[in-house]
Amino acid sequence: MRLLYHLPHSPFARKVRLVLAEKRLPFELRLEKTWERRPEFLEINPTGQVPVLTDENGLIIAESTAICEYLDEAYPDIPLIGRTLAERAEVRRLVAWFDLKFNHDVTRHLLGEKIMKRMAGRGQPDTGALRVGYANLKNHMEYLGYLAEARKWLGGTNLSLADFAAASHLSALDFAGEVDWSVSAAAKDWYARIKSRPSFRPILADRMPGITPPAHYADLDF
Amino acid sequence: MRLLYHLPHSPFARKVRLVLAEKRLPFELRLEKTWERRPEFLEINPTGQVPVLTDENGLIIAESTAICEYLDEAYPDIPLIGRTLAERAEVRRLVAWFDLKFNHDVTRHLLGEKIMKRMAGRGQPDTGALRVGYANLKNHMEYLGYLAEARKWLGGTNLSLADFAAASHLSALDFAGEVDWSVSAAAKDWYARIKSRPSFRPILADRMPGITPPAHYADLDF
Repeated sequence: MRLLYHLPHSPFARKVRLVLAEKRLPFELRLEKTWERRPEFLEINPTGQVPVLTDENGLIIAESTAICEYLDEAYPDIPLIGRTLAERAEVRRLVAWFDLKFNHDVTRHLLGEKIMKRMAGRGQPDTGALRVGYANLKNHMEYLGYLAEARKWLGGTNLSLADFAAASHLSALDFAGEVDWSVSAAAKDWYARIKSRPSFRPILADRMPGITPPAHYADLDF
Repeated sequence: MRLLYHLPHSPFARKVRLVLAEKRLPFELRLEKTWERRPEFLEINPTGQVPVLTDENGLIIAESTAICEYLDEAYPDIPLIGRTLAERAEVRRLVAWFDLKFNHDVTRHLLGEKIMKRMAGRGQPDTGALRVGYANLKNHMEYLGYLAEARKWLGGTNLSLADFAAASHLSALDFAGEVDWSVSAAAKDWYARIKSRPSFRPILADRMPGITPPAHYADLDF
């Protein structure tokens, strides 16, 4: 059976879950408490991070970009990284935008402080980090709104990994009640569209001990 | 003409330069002082970072992973991301290891403090950051040595983007005199092999104002 080591709030694991579901590839989830640094897990991924995929053919693939590129090559029926060279370059630029820049500017501050610290039992959020995260999130929501207004999907005319990367970070932050959707109507409309996809359902059903998501989190008409 | 916006010490730009040279694709370099945040450059890459490639066909590609994946798809004669699915997954895992983890643990501390601050005129290096960077570098050199001992090249039997990603970070740090090559004989031997390639020559000839590299920097028998 295909197996994905994950953490429910990890945007990088959420992205892979969405890709697997969009490609109709069945898989099982295994919760990996990365802060416990389990030796058997470090053996298969020396960074100690999720996601890691064990595919049906026995291949073990670590790191979310490597996994998504692998899935698009091994299961090409539903391509998710664009069709032309130009489209593929734009999708990959945006995936890096969310996984590197958005993560650096926003996710690590807000999610790191509020959820990771709680799950790992590492004390209270640092208010300075939260302030930085909120200020950056507003700018990013405006960029997201700009893309959503100019294009059908974030990477262009086709739904792609760019949408899943963005939606993974935003859904994890939304779970923690951190997203102000009033900043951009276009961004909100884009998120409502992606959130309504069947691939998103298991993610909206996720619960984490000690954290109650806001009422609109799983609401498709938020 | 193919054009690469770069900074001489940027490991991400060095990686793209190596890929272009290995694929025998001629290009011109354009120095982009990213800290000046030039509006025309932000227009083509809103992150404001190098590298950005303008290809002969007019395509503009931002972000080093997107550029390297593009080059391997557009110019496949000399493949650099592995041949089998398993090889490709391993090469991409290692590229992420160096570009994300090594960069986070080492490069941003040592290069960020010593070179970026000097080039952007932003004051003295922070000794705390340097200490963290040196401690992490030692562990990474051991991992690099372990890989170099077990395999012909870092990603397996073929020279690949994994080698170029690693060599880009290490050569930028070596320029600043930060690498203790005595930690691992296997890592040093691997670096001597990659450094001897014709694609590396222009990188070893780079000079930056106000910084003198150590005597061994451009020496192939260091």
